[in-house]
Amino acid sequence: MKLKVKKISLNTGGPFVAVLNEDDAELLDVRALDRVNIKGIEAIVDISKENHKTAVNKGEIGVLIELFENLKLKNGSAVNITPANKPESLVFIRKKLDGGKLKDREINVIIRDVVKNRLSETELTYFVSGCYTHGLEMNEVVNLTKAIVEHGGELKWNKKIILDKHCAGGLAGNRTSMIIVPIIAAAGYIIPKTSSRAISSASGTADTVEVLCPVSFKVNEIRKIIKKTNGCLVWGGAIGMASADDRLIKIEKLLSLDPRGLLLASIMAKKMAVGATHVLVDIPCGKEAKIKDMKEALKLKRQFIELSKRLKIKTRVIITNGSQPIGNGIGPNLEARDVMDVLKGKGPLDLREKSLHMAGIMLEMAGEKNGLEKAKKILDSGMAYKKMLEIIKAQNGRVKNASRIKLGEYKKEFFAEKRGIVRRINNNKANSIARIAGAPEDKFAGILLNVKRNIKVNAGELIFTIYSSNKDRLRYASDSSDSFIEVE
Amino acid sequence: MKLKVKKISLNTGGPFVAVLNEDDAELLDVRALDRVNIKGIEAIVDISKENHKTAVNKGEIGVLIELFENLKLKNGSAVNITPANKPESLVFIRKKLDGGKLKDREINVIIRDVVKNRLSETELTYFVSGCYTHGLEMNEVVNLTKAIVEHGGELKWNKKIILDKHCAGGLAGNRTSMIIVPIIAAAGYIIPKTSSRAISSASGTADTVEVLCPVSFKVNEIRKIIKKTNGCLVWGGAIGMASADDRLIKIEKLLSLDPRGLLLASIMAKKMAVGATHVLVDIPCGKEAKIKDMKEALKLKRQFIELSKRLKIKTRVIITNGSQPIGNGIGPNLEARDVMDVLKGKGPLDLREKSLHMAGIMLEMAGEKNGLEKAKKILDSGMAYKKMLEIIKAQNGRVKNASRIKLGEYKKEFFAEKRGIVRRINNNKANSIARIAGAPEDKFAGILLNVKRNIKVNAGELIFTIYSSNKDRLRYASDSSDSFIEVE
Repeated sequence: MKLKVKKISLNTGGPFVAVLNEDDAELLDVRALDRVNIKGIEAIVDISKENHKTAVNKGEIGVLIELFENLKLKNGSAVNITPANKPESLVFIRKKLDGGKLKDREINVIIRDVVKNRLSETELTYFVSGCYTHGLEMNEVVNLTKAIVEHGGELKWNKKIILDKHCAGGLAGNRTSMIIVPIIAAAGYIIPKTSSRAISSASGTADTVEVLCPVSFKVNEIRKIIKKTNGCLVWGGAIGMASADDRLIKIEKLLSLDPRGLLLASIMAKKMAVGATHVLVDIPCGKEAKIKDMKEALKLKRQFIELSKRLKIKTRVIITNGSQPIGNGIGPNLEARDVMDVLKGKGPLDLREKSLHMAGIMLEMAGEKNGLEKAKKILDSGMAYKKMLEIIKAQNGRVKNASRIKLGEYKKEFFAEKRGIVRRINNNKANSIARIAGAPEDKFAGILLNVKRNIKVNAGELIFTIYSSNKDRLRYASDSSDSFIEVE
Repeated sequence: MKLKVKKISLNTGGPFVAVLNEDDAELLDVRALDRVNIKGIEAIVDISKENHKTAVNKGEIGVLIELFENLKLKNGSAVNITPANKPESLVFIRKKLDGGKLKDREINVIIRDVVKNRLSETELTYFVSGCYTHGLEMNEVVNLTKAIVEHGGELKWNKKIILDKHCAGGLAGNRTSMIIVPIIAAAGYIIPKTSSRAISSASGTADTVEVLCPVSFKVNEIRKIIKKTNGCLVWGGAIGMASADDRLIKIEKLLSLDPRGLLLASIMAKKMAVGATHVLVDIPCGKEAKIKDMKEALKLKRQFIELSKRLKIKTRVIITNGSQPIGNGIGPNLEARDVMDVLKGKGPLDLREKSLHMAGIMLEMAGEKNGLEKAKKILDSGMAYKKMLEIIKAQNGRVKNASRIKLGEYKKEFFAEKRGIVRRINNNKANSIARIAGAPEDKFAGILLNVKRNIKVNAGELIFTIYSSNKDRLRYASDSSDSFIEVE
């Protein structure tokens, strides 16, 4: 059917979409979410209904911006439209929803279609639902990981050892990567670290690194940075590798689903994609962490080990203290200051100790002896600090800025109301207060902690300060800070 | 945050959508699929990404047509945008996805939000997935039905008996409603029959009625038609009652899911919505029907009975012969001709017998004795035919047309290749051939059967004819008709 192109100024970020008038759709015998072929490209059909004031008239085809530009169409020109088959992957998605076990090829086809943006959100949601409800067997997770890497791209190195780390997350201020990377790189090992931005927390590692230097680099730029410095601290989202799960994660977040198999595959695919051979996984476990229960932590540990074995990646998993935030600062600038302080041999002790512990293990995984001592030596000698400045420079940062990190223009201090012992520093509240104050977009916003759990405080003693660049936000954040720190 | 309105000429048919620039979304701390409030109305957020040539610039808010018109906005005017909470129903959708049993109020809130168009397709898909995977208990189905009716609207009558029927479907040519309605109406009972259009079949009852008269009426128009004639034959989709399930059905179709509980609720809600007190349900069972297995048919029967009891609707369920299509014609005009022939005392015997059988039961449900005899008398005396002409007239049809129904301009006849017995008339193929020939949009297109199952044919005997208004379509349909009728 010949139809006249009508450009629609909307991008979905998802699959290509074409809008048909209801009558034309009937003639073509296509329904909403069916596919049509336009000049060799498939688009998902949306229908313009007769009972609405129609945007797309009979004889027209509405083409959304992404497809319009991809096909280099002209507004008003005529194109030929034919019905197209639905993607093969839908059969396998249905199979998973029905509780079936997916074969290697079936998973590969699903991930291929996800990466090629051939699936609608509804179809992806069915896949996530299926994985969530019926779970994925280890075999499926292995194939899923490989498929994500296959369709995303992989960095190759001519070295035998490529180190990486991952944190199963949840603790505010837990910026160990920014200390571990310079230590490992200074020791002469390659560590191509990619990190994420905050989704619901005060700051992700990428947000905090961004205080010091840019974090968005393409694959070949990352190669150059690492050639210069052995390490990098970049935002994984900018690379476009292992990208299949970005769309799936968006759908999981919607109901805060946590489909274990998908998450494991997503994490390990990112490690495989940067070419990692040795990985240290940190699982914080405790009242304030994402994982609160030791049994759950041990189960996750076993899954990481098993999956890594199958992927031929050497992985160690440590379960760490998840009873409170790490470091003193929460929010990009405050955290960056903690990190630079530790690298200069000062800074919060818990952040220093945890980073050294992990760097030590990683050095030993690489074959070194007395890893912890070596890590300490690299840190205390200033080699790690020097390496960090190199990395900042290689990532186009101005090194000067690293030594004078500013905090928010407006601040409000909070004092203990009574004498007692700090019983709880509420991690969720920390994230929420810092976000209300403006983090992570407002780099200056956040919380500075003056206390840690189980220490004694006197009535009237300063326990924390909220910073912000915006007076209103500071007030609003302050109003939300009730019972953030509990003293008993 | 104040943003400048930018009208986007696209209607989704779904919830209200507003498009934010990535930077503004960050400042508001909203992500895709979050909600914002614009002038007291909630909209789902879509994000315009920086790596695309942006449709929505910083400082602008893209507003899709439906919302733009609902709020009577002006292009370029400034509006205030605030983040809004996600709908409460998401918590309950998550609960169902996790296998929980939904309470009365929880289901009511979900259906309210569906009807109010507050949920995105992804969120609806999670609900459908949950219902599909974990099923719905009868209690949930009852509450779901009531909620659909509550939020859709209900016709009220000052009569004690309102009759209705439903067919669990699947057989081509099965147009009993068009014979039963005039019989019941002629007997003096109210029968406000709503029907659907074809989705994947050659013709739905609404498509076939449309050959004779319009089928799209509003609730108050239907009242008038029924006041005049006791009955109607209208398209359910036009009324906008019990509309909650329209969006859910669209999502179910996508993976051809058949979440029993949702379907039962959807059917019975339509009966409740027209005020039915007595309902006859026809479940065709057999090789060519949707339900192929007697155990399955009996299970469905029990569920209909149980649900009806809980809804205080008197329901009888019959399981009928699903071994082949009903009547001779398949396709709107061909079926309409069968129906008018039966009403005139002629026509295909199977369609006549089945309709009389069902009308007889319904008359007895209404309290009459010897229902079948009464139905026969009404049909054979011409009263039903007269009533049908009344209904056609009340629905603004031209009665003249009913007596001279045309078939397709082009036709191709098919002959038995050998002597033998007709073993199979493939129902799926019948629908597919008729659709390729142009049905249901091309009213003239379809198949005329000259044989029934288990009859003897000679080599060279005419067994069926394909009709179409379009030469190419006729050829294509003919090419697809291999082994449609099997003779052995």
